[in-house]
Amino acid sequence: MNTIGKNYRLTTFGESHGEALGGIIDGCPAGIELDFEQIQYELDRRKPGQSNIVTQRKESDTVKFLSGIFEGKTTGTSIGFIIPNENQKSKDYGHIEDVFRPSHADFTYQQKYGIRDHRGGGRSSARETANWIVGGAIAKQILKGIEINAYTSSVGDLFLEKPYQALDFSKVESNIVRCPDEEVAEQMITKIHEVRKAGDTIGGTVTCVLKNVQIGLGEPIFDKLHARLGQAMLGINAVKGFEYGSGFCGAKMKGSEHNDLFNEDGTTKSNLSGGIQGGISNGMDIYFRLAFKPVATIMQEQETINSKGEIVKMQGKGRHDPCVVPRAVPIVEALAAMVLLDFVLLDNSQNDSGLSF
Amino acid sequence: MNTIGKNYRLTTFGESHGEALGGIIDGCPAGIELDFEQIQYELDRRKPGQSNIVTQRKESDTVKFLSGIFEGKTTGTSIGFIIPNENQKSKDYGHIEDVFRPSHADFTYQQKYGIRDHRGGGRSSARETANWIVGGAIAKQILKGIEINAYTSSVGDLFLEKPYQALDFSKVESNIVRCPDEEVAEQMITKIHEVRKAGDTIGGTVTCVLKNVQIGLGEPIFDKLHARLGQAMLGINAVKGFEYGSGFCGAKMKGSEHNDLFNEDGTTKSNLSGGIQGGISNGMDIYFRLAFKPVATIMQEQETINSKGEIVKMQGKGRHDPCVVPRAVPIVEALAAMVLLDFVLLDNSQNDSGLSF
Amino acid sequence: MNTIGKNYRLTTFGESHGEALGGIIDGCPAGIELDFEQIQYELDRRKPGQSNIVTQRKESDTVKFLSGIFEGKTTGTSIGFIIPNENQKSKDYGHIEDVFRPSHADFTYQQKYGIRDHRGGGRSSARETANWIVGGAIAKQILKGIEINAYTSSVGDLFLEKPYQALDFSKVESNIVRCPDEEVAEQMITKIHEVRKAGDTIGGTVTCVLKNVQIGLGEPIFDKLHARLGQAMLGINAVKGFEYGSGFCGAKMKGSEHNDLFNEDGTTKSNLSGGIQGGISNGMDIYFRLAFKPVATIMQEQETINSKGEIVKMQGKGRHDPCVVPRAVPIVEALAAMVLLDFVLLDNSQNDSGLSF
Amino acid sequence: MNTIGKNYRLTTFGESHGEALGGIIDGCPAGIELDFEQIQYELDRRKPGQSNIVTQRKESDTVKFLSGIFEGKTTGTSIGFIIPNENQKSKDYGHIEDVFRPSHADFTYQQKYGIRDHRGGGRSSARETANWIVGGAIAKQILKGIEINAYTSSVGDLFLEKPYQALDFSKVESNIVRCPDEEVAEQMITKIHEVRKAGDTIGGTVTCVLKNVQIGLGEPIFDKLHARLGQAMLGINAVKGFEYGSGFCGAKMKGSEHNDLFNEDGTTKSNLSGGIQGGISNGMDIYFRLAFKPVATIMQEQETINSKGEIVKMQGKGRHDPCVVPRAVPIVEALAAMVLLDFVLLDNSQNDSGLSF
Repeated sequence: MNTIGKNYRLTTFGESHGEALGGIIDGCPAGIELDFEQIQYELDRRKPGQSNIVTQRKESDTVKFLSGIFEGKTTGTSIGFIIPNENQKSKDYGHIEDVFRPSHADFTYQQKYGIRDHRGGGRSSARETANWIVGGAIAKQILKGIEINAYTSSVGDLFLEKPYQALDFSKVESNIVRCPDEEVAEQMITKIHEVRKAGDTIGGTVTCVLKNVQIGLGEPIFDKLHARLGQAMLGINAVKGFEYGSGFCGAKMKGSEHNDLFNEDGTTKSNLSGGIQGGISNGMDIYFRLAFKPVATIMQEQETINSKGEIVKMQGKGRHDPCVVPRAVPIVEALAAMVLLDFVLLDNSQNDSGLSF
Repeated sequence: MNTIGKNYRLTTFGESHGEALGGIIDGCPAGIELDFEQIQYELDRRKPGQSNIVTQRKESDTVKFLSGIFEGKTTGTSIGFIIPNENQKSKDYGHIEDVFRPSHADFTYQQKYGIRDHRGGGRSSARETANWIVGGAIAKQILKGIEINAYTSSVGDLFLEKPYQALDFSKVESNIVRCPDEEVAEQMITKIHEVRKAGDTIGGTVTCVLKNVQIGLGEPIFDKLHARLGQAMLGINAVKGFEYGSGFCGAKMKGSEHNDLFNEDGTTKSNLSGGIQGGISNGMDIYFRLAFKPVATIMQEQETINSKGEIVKMQGKGRHDPCVVPRAVPIVEALAAMVLLDFVLLDNSQNDSGLSF
Repeated sequence: MNTIGKNYRLTTFGESHGEALGGIIDGCPAGIELDFEQIQYELDRRKPGQSNIVTQRKESDTVKFLSGIFEGKTTGTSIGFIIPNENQKSKDYGHIEDVFRPSHADFTYQQKYGIRDHRGGGRSSARETANWIVGGAIAKQILKGIEINAYTSSVGDLFLEKPYQALDFSKVESNIVRCPDEEVAEQMITKIHEVRKAGDTIGGTVTCVLKNVQIGLGEPIFDKLHARLGQAMLGINAVKGFEYGSGFCGAKMKGSEHNDLFNEDGTTKSNLSGGIQGGISNGMDIYFRLAFKPVATIMQEQETINSKGEIVKMQGKGRHDPCVVPRAVPIVEALAAMVLLDFVLLDNSQNDSGLSF
Repeated sequence: MNTIGKNYRLTTFGESHGEALGGIIDGCPAGIELDFEQIQYELDRRKPGQSNIVTQRKESDTVKFLSGIFEGKTTGTSIGFIIPNENQKSKDYGHIEDVFRPSHADFTYQQKYGIRDHRGGGRSSARETANWIVGGAIAKQILKGIEINAYTSSVGDLFLEKPYQALDFSKVESNIVRCPDEEVAEQMITKIHEVRKAGDTIGGTVTCVLKNVQIGLGEPIFDKLHARLGQAMLGINAVKGFEYGSGFCGAKMKGSEHNDLFNEDGTTKSNLSGGIQGGISNGMDIYFRLAFKPVATIMQEQETINSKGEIVKMQGKGRHDPCVVPRAVPIVEALAAMVLLDFVLLDNSQNDSGLSF
């Protein structure tokens, strides 16, 4: 429910306007020397107010560790942490106390629970993803050698057409939209500014590439590596689709075009499989793509209903993202890191594959 | 690993060429009077040899229940079942004993386990999905009132363009490709025949629609309803992508276009959300779409490697599907039924939503 | 690992001398109006320094809720809480930094993790049980009607011989040893004072009685009600044994003596079964008994080893309980409440048993 | 529910009088060459009819493996197996179709599920434990080096007084009651014969010793090694109590008597801890003891009720054990093996403890 993972497990709590968010990491190996600056760096990549194309809510998103770490190293026991909320403006949400915002979780939470913390969306707020960054930042530090890179691959109908192999991931952080192609990034930023000025929002996609993943991660049948990546990614607020390898394009192809032929060393000439075969990593790059819908809160007047079932007019207030994609990039990486580590810790692959190459 | 579900749980075993497949259903409510003919009907929809566009392996796929049922009713205890394999032609697979078929699980299984049952793909064979049909067919019988309909929505680049609302689901079974539009179905069947004659295979998509789902299914954060549906569907052999509601199209849209405005009764005027908001069902139709890659075994000569890392030539033998999509339709429905029932049994929604409409 | 329960789940963190303990409760039903004073009352029953027969460490053990509660009611989302540590005297533990205390977890933690927070036992400290009290106190409030009463039934070789039916549970809190028979309580208190003066510690037993438990809780085979109660109770620090109903005495009996004959209304004339048959509650009182070993830290000089494997002398410092049993009473109740609620939330019992009485 | 274990998982099904019992083992490592004779040997130790002090039901209890094994070796995929029921005499149970046997699960199953397979106790029958033997026999073969020995330590008030260190475990199988002391064994056998002649049954205890268990197994807090052993053992039919190390005797002791002082090599001079400290194995022998109540089915006339709530007379029929303890011995070992392997597969102990001895 509020837990992700089986071996490396993150359990979380927190509402947008409560006193703090936080979580507990269970199953973290002992003796890991943590780089706390790196953890904060990842939080900063996600935090609100980082640029003029994201929400202007101001939060330092400072994580405070309460247990599981002794003299800078993990002890193998559960790691508790909190991230205080600093800049709640709950009054911004007074206008929705009794109103259900269209395409939000307001209505379904009220129906399911009979009660909801309406302030900032309560538990349904994407503020929760700050917790995931903490879990993912620690996982990244344990997964030495594996490279995890996500980037913005489209905003609206503006697509970064280059394949990931042609990109320089070191440029992802060189612009505020997190697209590693400067020219396309400029266009995307302009697009988001236009949308925001119109009081509107826009969707987009994030692509993620995992390099140097060991062979053998993933479990047959129901815990295939891509199925677990998919579940994790579909849990991100606003995600409407997940594809890996050839994805939806692959559904148009023939077998003779789609098969990845082997080289003598077990690598493959093409990689439409996306680094996973039979649910198990094959050592090639793993890549996948996520669709994000446009943020539901727009600054235009819309009709909606209140708790009496009356049609009322409302207009977004508060501080919202015109496009979630730039801030989603580190979230995707964090989840990918946690899913990978979960499988690495389980790892039941044999040392001896019986292969002579 | 080999278990799906938390409350309604199916655990499975079986290889393509072993003596039998089978499974255990745990958490099935007591006192359900089972319709065994209906269970067999669902198995028949999936079974090989059912038409000339699917594999010609002959299996009756007869399920035998061993426990958990007394005088035709479920007893609340675990339901064990087996499906004997009848038509194994293991010699068909002698040629791959030492060879890794491209884009199959042969290589990854060997690497992970250091051993594999190469006959028919062993555990990685889609024959496993017969087990899922049993679990799903029982789930369907418990989920009275909920309608679950999947259908073939594309084969290669042939798309059924009509939205699901314009379709008559009763026609899905009226043709062998399981597309509810006769005209498009004809074209798809012709396409599959062409592909098969060329010794090739082709991909496609399946769309699934869930009607009359109660409000409140799905758990916030990591067990969102669509995330669990996604994980289940991504576990089907050959699936490369999952999208629900507006899906990847939604990523191109603006918030002002994408928001689903409410009617006074809490239903919505549009349904780009796909019946799920904040991970929780809102009572509208749930719909999603899956991409299937083309089957990897083709009847053309291909180069590949053997266990010594030598390049060798191989050609598909055995009996294989030129397109998995028609037989995938009942599998998608079965998994959807199991996921829904899993949430229904957990259901912690409040009876009193506090709403006055 | 650090989680108890499946439906009502408590995940915890915290070391004896860290900044705070805490936990996350997942699966708590929505709309429960919490009595915060009652929660604090339960914490006070466990807290150190409450009397002169327990450790003199001073902690207010004040719980602070961070999420999952809105306007005094549970919202159905995860409840995060922390309990700050106030009175750490870590210097008290400098003497054991490099020494393994006999019959403590020092040695096994060091061997398992290669690192340990030696201060106050770190994660192995019974201070963790404060977290359980919070989870249990909330569970108790949800389990309306079920009465949960634990009490001290022996200290060393001083036994409360009366059966639980002859006791007045309202007297448990009337003395500091938590034995509902005043006379025996006096003797127990005297015994504990003697032991403490001698720099020694002493074991004891706690008995717990659950009344008005609904029929049908517990799952056949591996999750029998008493097996889950047993696992929970055996997790309490210092517990060496668990028995329910007739327990170890039952092993000496004959079937003709041990069988509980029915009354016409389905109740039983005797209750050696302890309210559970076939792992499922039968509506009679559930009762069980726990053995606690004496606290390992004694104020006498003992020989032990250091991390170099050298024999060294050490003497207990810090503030320790001469007998854990009085403070264990509320802990046992808390765990019992959580286990019961876990089954209540799962509850898949049929409304119609088909019985005509 | 019907699953034990997290990493090495056994899920089971089957009723006493159904067509077959069976199970699925998930998480078994790949490449293990199985000794099938040894598996059958363990089944024979448990099977009915093996001597004149156990039930005379005749079952060969032959296990048939259906998957997960290829050319005699485990493949890492799920192992499915069945054990056909051969000697059901369901008519023996016609007399209890409408009657609830005292101290059985008949009443609670009917109340919980509203339906029950009354034949032979259905799912509540100890026949289920044959499945556990299979899971345990395979686990034993993987746990090379660890010695697991259980034995009958009391029947009624006849106790084997010798400590386990004074026993020769190779003699456990030399007599039908499975007590390694010939003299006491004789007395126990005589006692059981007397009880059976009187149409009665009798309880007893089983002690189990685990030698050469590696240091570091067990997880802090809720999955302590002894807590998981306790849960497993309390799941055995008729078990009423579990104690390890000093157990209930330890509750009478003082800390100065109870502490296990260290030797220079990290072993301890005494072992009242029972090989587990802080929930984690310390390398010393692990030992525990179980209380079994007398079998509820006696061959004397008893009063009970039927489904109309009427008092009726009944007398046990069918073939029942006068004392379950001899047949429980291999069951205890099987469960112990599965629990140990579950932790071994998880094993997250560090290779470097930082200790210099």
